Amino acid sequence: MTPRWTKKDFLGLEELTQEELQLLIAQAKAFQEVSLRPIKKVPALRGRTVVLCFLEPSTRTRASFELAAKRLSADILQIQPSSSSLVKGETILDTARNIEAMQVDILVIRHSTSGIPALVARSIQSSVINAGDGSHEHPTQGLVDLFTIQEKKGRIAGLNVLIVGDILHSRVARSDFWGLSKLGAQVTLCGPPTLVPAQMEALGAKISYRLEESLPQADVVIALRLQMERQQEKFIPSLREYSRLYGIDLEKLEKAKPDLLIMHPGPVNRGVELSPEVADGPRSVILEQVTNGIAARMAVLYLVAGGRAADRSPVAPEPSPKPVEVDS
Amino acid sequence: MTPRWTKKDFLGLEELTQEELQLLIAQAKAFQEVSLRPIKKVPALRGRTVVLCFLEPSTRTRASFELAAKRLSADILQIQPSSSSLVKGETILDTARNIEAMQVDILVIRHSTSGIPALVARSIQSSVINAGDGSHEHPTQGLVDLFTIQEKKGRIAGLNVLIVGDILHSRVARSDFWGLSKLGAQVTLCGPPTLVPAQMEALGAKISYRLEESLPQADVVIALRLQMERQQEKFIPSLREYSRLYGIDLEKLEKAKPDLLIMHPGPVNRGVELSPEVADGPRSVILEQVTNGIAARMAVLYLVAGGRAADRSPVAPEPSPKPVEVDS
Amino acid sequence: MTPRWTKKDFLGLEELTQEELQLLIAQAKAFQEVSLRPIKKVPALRGRTVVLCFLEPSTRTRASFELAAKRLSADILQIQPSSSSLVKGETILDTARNIEAMQVDILVIRHSTSGIPALVARSIQSSVINAGDGSHEHPTQGLVDLFTIQEKKGRIAGLNVLIVGDILHSRVARSDFWGLSKLGAQVTLCGPPTLVPAQMEALGAKISYRLEESLPQADVVIALRLQMERQQEKFIPSLREYSRLYGIDLEKLEKAKPDLLIMHPGPVNRGVELSPEVADGPRSVILEQVTNGIAARMAVLYLVAGGRAADRSPVAPEPSPKPVEVDS
Repeated sequence: MTPRWTKKDFLGLEELTQEELQLLIAQAKAFQEVSLRPIKKVPALRGRTVVLCFLEPSTRTRASFELAAKRLSADILQIQPSSSSLVKGETILDTARNIEAMQVDILVIRHSTSGIPALVARSIQSSVINAGDGSHEHPTQGLVDLFTIQEKKGRIAGLNVLIVGDILHSRVARSDFWGLSKLGAQVTLCGPPTLVPAQMEALGAKISYRLEESLPQADVVIALRLQMERQQEKFIPSLREYSRLYGIDLEKLEKAKPDLLIMHPGPVNRGVELSPEVADGPRSVILEQVTNGIAARMAVLYLVAGGRAADRSPVAPEPSPKPVEVDS
Repeated sequence: MTPRWTKKDFLGLEELTQEELQLLIAQAKAFQEVSLRPIKKVPALRGRTVVLCFLEPSTRTRASFELAAKRLSADILQIQPSSSSLVKGETILDTARNIEAMQVDILVIRHSTSGIPALVARSIQSSVINAGDGSHEHPTQGLVDLFTIQEKKGRIAGLNVLIVGDILHSRVARSDFWGLSKLGAQVTLCGPPTLVPAQMEALGAKISYRLEESLPQADVVIALRLQMERQQEKFIPSLREYSRLYGIDLEKLEKAKPDLLIMHPGPVNRGVELSPEVADGPRSVILEQVTNGIAARMAVLYLVAGGRAADRSPVAPEPSPKPVEVDS
Repeated sequence: MTPRWTKKDFLGLEELTQEELQLLIAQAKAFQEVSLRPIKKVPALRGRTVVLCFLEPSTRTRASFELAAKRLSADILQIQPSSSSLVKGETILDTARNIEAMQVDILVIRHSTSGIPALVARSIQSSVINAGDGSHEHPTQGLVDLFTIQEKKGRIAGLNVLIVGDILHSRVARSDFWGLSKLGAQVTLCGPPTLVPAQMEALGAKISYRLEESLPQADVVIALRLQMERQQEKFIPSLREYSRLYGIDLEKLEKAKPDLLIMHPGPVNRGVELSPEVADGPRSVILEQVTNGIAARMAVLYLVAGGRAADRSPVAPEPSPKPVEVDS
C-alpha cells in the first residue's frame, strides 16, 4: 500500500510518524535523479505559487529551496526582510494573511523566533514549511541528513549517530534527533556541559561531554556549526579550547570506525568543528548533503502541495532545435 | 461592440474615459478566476519582458505586480534602488532608455516624485505603468478599489464613497477620486482641515471635516493609511487625537449603513485608522482588495501589452504525471 | 565546416582563437532576432541552472545576463554579496563548490579581484563565465563591442580602433584590445600618461597621449567610463582638465572621419567622456551596444552550455488565446 501525505504543513520532524518520514525519504529519492538530467525540471508544481519568506539571513537554505521550487516548475515570490512591510509595523500574522490573500500555495518561512511558522500555519490555509525557526527545528535540514544517511549506509535503524557541538542552540540538532530517533537510530549528543541540555536524556538521547569517548562507537558523526558569538556569550572558553576538545581532526579519527560518515550542515568553520583534511576527506559527505538538499526540499514542497507518490515525469518536450549552420 | 485599449501607457485614472475604466474592470473580472485554478497561469504574456523598477520601498505592490506578471507567463526583471545605476550618476531617463534598449515590453515604475512615470513614458517606446508616483496617482490601487466595489456592490454609479484620512498626501485618494467620479459615484473626502485640500470641491468632491457627520451616508468607506511621520510634521496633533476623530471603531459604525463596505489599501495601522475589530470584521474587504490586486494588475499588464478582450485560455497541458508507487 | 566551441569556461578574450571569436560573433548574430520577436524566448537552455554571482555592484551587466538567460529559458539563481555566505567566513572556493553541489550548469561571476573566475573555474566542473574581474577582463563586454563593430562596419580586420580613457584600470579596454587585435584591427590606446600602460605597445597597440592626433585616423572610438574616484587618487589633475583633453565633443569630431563609430560601455558621465550632443548624436551606437549585449550573452551562455551552431527555434506554441468578448 502506498502511504499518503495528509498534513497541510511541514513544521518539524518531532510531529511526524515513522511512516511519514519514510515517505519523505522515498520521495526525495525519487526526485534525486531529476537534478542529474540535462533538463533538470518536472512540471509537478507548474502554476503553483511558492513564497520564500526568509526573515533571517540565509544563502544556502534559501538557494536550495529556490532551486527545488524551480525544478518543480513553481512560480516563486521572494519576501526580503529589509523590504518587508514588517518595517511598516505589520505583525507577522498580518503579513501572512496578506500573502495568503494573493492566493499562494506554499509559504516557506525562516524566522529567528521559535514557533513562528506554527503560529502562521494555524492562521492561514496555505501550506507552511518551516525553513528554520529560532532554536526549535530546521526540519528540511533534518530530512536532508536522514536521506543522506539512508543513501550512504542503506539504513538508519540501529546506527549510532553522534551529534557534536552546540546542541543547546541548534535547531539542526533538534530536527536530526527527532528524525533519527523515530527511525530507530541511537543518538548521542556531545559537547561542552554548557551547550548540551541534560534533559534530552529523558527523550532517549545519550549524553557525552568527551568526544574521544563517544566518537569510536559512532557510525555517523554530525558536527554542528559553531556560532562564533557563543564565545562572547561565555558558553565556550575559547575557540582554541573548543576546537581541541570538540573539533574533529585526523588524530581523533584514528580511533573511529573506518566507515564513519562525517556530516556538517555547513558552512564549516575550517579548523574549528572540522580540520580542513577531515572536511575535504574521503569520509566527508558534506557536499552530498548540499546536493541532497535539493531533492529533499523538492519532496517536501511536492508532498505539502498535495502530490501523491513520486511524480518524476519530464517536462513536455519542446520542438527539437534545428541547428543553423554557422560558417567561420 | 467590444471596446479596445489603445493607450501605450497606464499613468493615471485621471486621463482615462469611462469606457476605458469599464474595460479594465471587465478585464480584471475575466482574470479573477485564473488565481483560483490549481494551475494559476495563462500564456498571455509568454516571452514578453516586464521590468519592475521600484525606486521607493514597496513590498505589497511589488509582490502583486510580480505575481500578476508571473501568472501571465511574462519574464520579469527587477531593478532595485540600491543596485541601480542611478547611484552611478545616471539620470532616470538614461536608465529608462538603457532598459528599453534591452527590448523590454513593459516598464513598471514606482518613484517618490510625482510625474516621473509620465516623463519616462514620453521618452521611450516601451509601455510604462505607474505603480505610484509621489502624491500624484497610484492608478492600479485605484483600479483595485473600483473592481472591489463593483464586485461587492454590483455597481459604482450612484454610490456614496467616503475617503478618510490624509487626502493631501495620498496618491491612492487621488486615483480613487478620479476613478469613482468618472464612473458616477459621489465622493466625499474627510479628514483634518490640514490634510484635506479644499480645492478638490471644485472637481466635484464633497468635503467633510467630521467623520460622524459623513459616515452615516456612506455606502463605502476607504480609510487611508496614516504616514506616521505626518505627526512630526505637525499635520496632525497626536495619534490619539487623530484616531479619536478619524479612526473607525465599532462605536462609530453604529450609525453607519448596515451594508457599509470598509476598505483600506493596507497595511493598516491597527487602532489608528481602524480598530482591530473593524479591520477584521464582517464588513471589511481589505483582504479581498489584496486578492483583487493580482487580477487588476494582470488586466493592466495585459491590456498595455496589446491584449484584446479577455484571454484566459489555460497554459498548454503538460503530460500527466505518471505516479511511481512508493512502498513504505 | 562548422566550427565548434570546446571550452568549458569563458574567462577572457586573450585566451580565444580567431575562430572562436568568429563563432561567438556568428552565434550572437543568430540570437539577435530572438529579442525582436513578440515571444522573445527560445527553449535552448530549458531546465539548465544559471547562477548569477555578482560580488561587486552591477545593474547593467547583471540585467543583461539575466535577460539573456531568461530568453534562453534557463532557471536562474541570484547570489547577492550582502546575503552571501561569504560573510559567514566561507572562502570563494567553498562557496563555488557548494553552488556546484546544487548541480548548476553555469556560474557567472563578477568579482573585484582579477583572476577569481579563473581560480573558480579550475576548481569546479560547472562552466564559469567571467562577468568582469578586477582590472583583468570583461570578456562579454568585449564580445558586445566586437559584435557591434561587425554589425555596423561589416568587418573588423583593417579598422583603426581608438580606445580612450583610463586604460590602466579598465577591464573593458583589455578585453577590447585582445578581441580586436586577434581579428585584425589596429588598436590605439589613448589617455593621460598616468593611465596608459606603455608596455601595451609590445603587444601590438599604438599609444597616444593626444586625442586630437589619434582621433582623425579612427574608424571606431571606444570612450571608457572614468571612475570618478581616480581624481582623488591623483591619476588625473581635474575633471575639467580631463574632459578638455580626452572628452569627445562636437568640436573634436570636426576632424574625425564622417562615418566614425562612437561607442561607450556605459553609463556615460555626460560632459566628461562624451558631450551630451555626441553621446546622443547620429554616430553614437551606445544604446545598440546595450541591445547587442543580450544577444552576445545569449551566445556565450549557449555555447558554454554545450550548444552547437545557432539554435533559434521558437518555444513550443501554446494554444492560441480564445478571446472572450467584453461588453462595455
